[in-house]
Amino acid sequence: MCRWLAYAGIPIAMDTLLFQPCNSLIRQSLSAQRSVAPTNGDGFGLGWYGDLARPGLYRDTMPAWSDANLRSLAEQIRSPLFFAHVRASTGTATSRLNCHPFRYGDWLFMHNGQIGGWPAVRQDVEGMIRKDLYRHREGSTDSEAFFYLALGNGLMEDAAKAFALTVAQIVGKMRHEGVTEPFRMTAALSDGQRLYAVRWSCDGRSPSLYWTQGHIDGCRDGRVCLEQGGDSVMVLSEPLDEDASHWNEVDEGSFLVAENGRVTVQSFNPFG
Amino acid sequence: MCRWLAYAGIPIAMDTLLFQPCNSLIRQSLSAQRSVAPTNGDGFGLGWYGDLARPGLYRDTMPAWSDANLRSLAEQIRSPLFFAHVRASTGTATSRLNCHPFRYGDWLFMHNGQIGGWPAVRQDVEGMIRKDLYRHREGSTDSEAFFYLALGNGLMEDAAKAFALTVAQIVGKMRHEGVTEPFRMTAALSDGQRLYAVRWSCDGRSPSLYWTQGHIDGCRDGRVCLEQGGDSVMVLSEPLDEDASHWNEVDEGSFLVAENGRVTVQSFNPFG
Amino acid sequence: MCRWLAYAGIPIAMDTLLFQPCNSLIRQSLSAQRSVAPTNGDGFGLGWYGDLARPGLYRDTMPAWSDANLRSLAEQIRSPLFFAHVRASTGTATSRLNCHPFRYGDWLFMHNGQIGGWPAVRQDVEGMIRKDLYRHREGSTDSEAFFYLALGNGLMEDAAKAFALTVAQIVGKMRHEGVTEPFRMTAALSDGQRLYAVRWSCDGRSPSLYWTQGHIDGCRDGRVCLEQGGDSVMVLSEPLDEDASHWNEVDEGSFLVAENGRVTVQSFNPFG
Amino acid sequence: MCRWLAYAGIPIAMDTLLFQPCNSLIRQSLSAQRSVAPTNGDGFGLGWYGDLARPGLYRDTMPAWSDANLRSLAEQIRSPLFFAHVRASTGTATSRLNCHPFRYGDWLFMHNGQIGGWPAVRQDVEGMIRKDLYRHREGSTDSEAFFYLALGNGLMEDAAKAFALTVAQIVGKMRHEGVTEPFRMTAALSDGQRLYAVRWSCDGRSPSLYWTQGHIDGCRDGRVCLEQGGDSVMVLSEPLDEDASHWNEVDEGSFLVAENGRVTVQSFNPFG
Repeated sequence: MCRWLAYAGIPIAMDTLLFQPCNSLIRQSLSAQRSVAPTNGDGFGLGWYGDLARPGLYRDTMPAWSDANLRSLAEQIRSPLFFAHVRASTGTATSRLNCHPFRYGDWLFMHNGQIGGWPAVRQDVEGMIRKDLYRHREGSTDSEAFFYLALGNGLMEDAAKAFALTVAQIVGKMRHEGVTEPFRMTAALSDGQRLYAVRWSCDGRSPSLYWTQGHIDGCRDGRVCLEQGGDSVMVLSEPLDEDASHWNEVDEGSFLVAENGRVTVQSFNPFG
Repeated sequence: MCRWLAYAGIPIAMDTLLFQPCNSLIRQSLSAQRSVAPTNGDGFGLGWYGDLARPGLYRDTMPAWSDANLRSLAEQIRSPLFFAHVRASTGTATSRLNCHPFRYGDWLFMHNGQIGGWPAVRQDVEGMIRKDLYRHREGSTDSEAFFYLALGNGLMEDAAKAFALTVAQIVGKMRHEGVTEPFRMTAALSDGQRLYAVRWSCDGRSPSLYWTQGHIDGCRDGRVCLEQGGDSVMVLSEPLDEDASHWNEVDEGSFLVAENGRVTVQSFNPFG
Repeated sequence: MCRWLAYAGIPIAMDTLLFQPCNSLIRQSLSAQRSVAPTNGDGFGLGWYGDLARPGLYRDTMPAWSDANLRSLAEQIRSPLFFAHVRASTGTATSRLNCHPFRYGDWLFMHNGQIGGWPAVRQDVEGMIRKDLYRHREGSTDSEAFFYLALGNGLMEDAAKAFALTVAQIVGKMRHEGVTEPFRMTAALSDGQRLYAVRWSCDGRSPSLYWTQGHIDGCRDGRVCLEQGGDSVMVLSEPLDEDASHWNEVDEGSFLVAENGRVTVQSFNPFG
Repeated sequence: MCRWLAYAGIPIAMDTLLFQPCNSLIRQSLSAQRSVAPTNGDGFGLGWYGDLARPGLYRDTMPAWSDANLRSLAEQIRSPLFFAHVRASTGTATSRLNCHPFRYGDWLFMHNGQIGGWPAVRQDVEGMIRKDLYRHREGSTDSEAFFYLALGNGLMEDAAKAFALTVAQIVGKMRHEGVTEPFRMTAALSDGQRLYAVRWSCDGRSPSLYWTQGHIDGCRDGRVCLEQGGDSVMVLSEPLDEDASHWNEVDEGSFLVAENGRVTVQSFNPFG
């Protein structure tokens, strides 16, 4: 289980969300509150949109809490849309190539969860990835494979449909192999304009996921200054502070889209 | 606060103590039981004696729990005397050069604790290190500085005396600077023959320290198979399993020497 | 293009070959003599047999020339059979998972060269790997894929036949994709008893490969002390010193087997 | 010997100078043209000014040529003033803490060269650093020590005078210790407004240093598009392309100041 955070809105310095809140993502890397695994120290990653269509990517294998580079980048870089992820491995090795987010062209993807029985279904799932996409795969995680399979399923054209089709294909392979461990996921996707998120599991026990919307005016005393307003959206594994009014839970089986500060949540059912 | 373990006795594969016990040192790196900081993920180190007088050294900045190299080395290398250390930084950076153990010639040293007010006393303490020794200092920790200062104070000739003198010198500098934070330490030292350990603090709140003696016959179901016999000694931050009969606490203000399976504990009072 | 060295014979400290010769493998990491790419700084690896059937593995992403851990391990560990490899990437990322040697059970494999058009044939080659083997694949190199495909082709039963069949299969896929870049390789394989090596390319321009046999009595003034005698064999990318009498070139299209100090070289022709 | 580059002028994407020119700094990391050591693979660093007074810092121990993070940051970040450095160690360990640039408050400093006999004079030089500055020292290089000593000598008030005084102090210590190896340096310093550079050695054999001034309009076919105009200045270890008209050599014993696109070079003689 990992922890992640996605932000879309007015440009802000990334450390406003990554370092300053009392339960910041970096704090979660050492001691997550709502996760089976409290320590998310198996690498981290940052993806952000700047002046280019193609997003920047910074990933490393150290725990996020001890990386001076990450602190400096988060302070310096202001971005209108960024993803951050701290990793707790579910079996694959700690390597930059296995750290989220993953990037393809102008797109970013990150994931928390697990494809049950991944060693048993991996080769088949990889074999379904479109050939021209497959050559971009660098690591060995289920998450990266999901992303490339979904890209071939039309992720850039109709994200909800492609997520559903990809989940269905993978669950089909899991059944075929007699896998009994569940498929559980929360995932985020963006092209630099829209932010998409999914929360789904085959057993109704998805990892936690929250969202919020408003105007962010920095962070004070560990608390995010979140005012009413329409310009910013966050989707994240767990709340950044203890002000319950800030954070809405994303229901099981949901697909969320945020654009221009507006959030739409619809039901997500790959087998509907 | 860090966690460490020192072994001296019949040659054993290092993973017998580092990986196999239910509360193994590697387990402690993720989740220590008797430490303020449960996570010791800011690097680790291994020092061991083999065929040469000079010990081997393997240190890296990853958390110990995720390093495949460490697992392989611990499985492969059998040693009659080894030190292992998992680090939780008290402020200095995560760097191989700041990882324990430290080596000088045929000697190994490792430490858990903190010299209170280190930033304030550091330059003076470093200035007291003997010049020919100082050039071997590579990092910026209080621990490494203690080691080199102690070497100049005769550590290789009379370890107990040199420890006491070094503590007294540093406490003197702390007082001179008006430092109010305590000096607390547990430390281990060896030349490949004898194993020395100290537990001391200026406020009676030293980090935990234990020792045991006997014949080690591997590890079964997470429990160290420790039989009566005189050939092996362990000194360590916390017990490796839940069998209380195995582990003796080292009292505050103690100096322990182990040689040929025999353990002597004497009082350690730098201001006595 | 990478550089590698394999040793089988009387147990020796690994630094005798890795650090001490004037053109040692570590020296080759900074400045290889017989390679298109003089710098082999994209990670390195060490595999060695000790007391266990399963070999030890130490791989890291630093250049070999600057890794203090490697120096210490090479000094400390004596081994009767070891592999060492310094990597110059031909395109895949610098990651521990892409560093040689690769290990499966009691077997080690390492490789220098390139499967031409790897991005184009990769997915098909991976799809041919036996499913129970595929789950052990961790990286994305052509080298590791070759190893697992060969394992499924009977590498552990008849190495020469499996090498030939694997080469033929891959060349078949390359032709099918219209790849015009060549397949070139030198590779080493061992189970801890026998040492196998191959030199082959589809265009007669294989990377360099040498072997020698004799009794190694250390290294003096940068020169390997190689006396007559039957106990030790080396196979390596380039000579370790300038004494031409020491080093025999392995011909193009050769398969070498060393066991108990005896070396047999036979012709290797996957399409014969 | 290392290689470095400093830029001050209109904001540009850092990869314009770091990656795109035919002899870019990243190319120099693998194969420098005007350096005794062609390989500068012992870590690298990037310091840049953005929206804050305090500059950003990104340093790592990999060779610059293989770091995907560096490539991404250089593409994404536009900056009006940045420093980049690729390191070839002259003895101290490869560690982030020993990588340039070094930062103090709003200031950046980087260095190429060597204080002769550093192990012999280190403790004395460190002892001369002002106490409140010393606590910021993290590594063990001569370069970082020079920076902190110079800060205490008024570097932020009168850079030329502080450089001269610091050189004189260190040379005094070298003489006192009977050091015969030379002190040679090229160094760069900035507060985010002005860019300072020094080229000096005690034996007239300083590392190479060049500067140029003009309007940078990107990079085409490996050649920097440098037009006449007053807005940008570069100071760097070696030319980025083969157009000799672009690059002016900085004479031995020079102190250069660049501000608002204007460059002043004056003589630098610490013993004048």
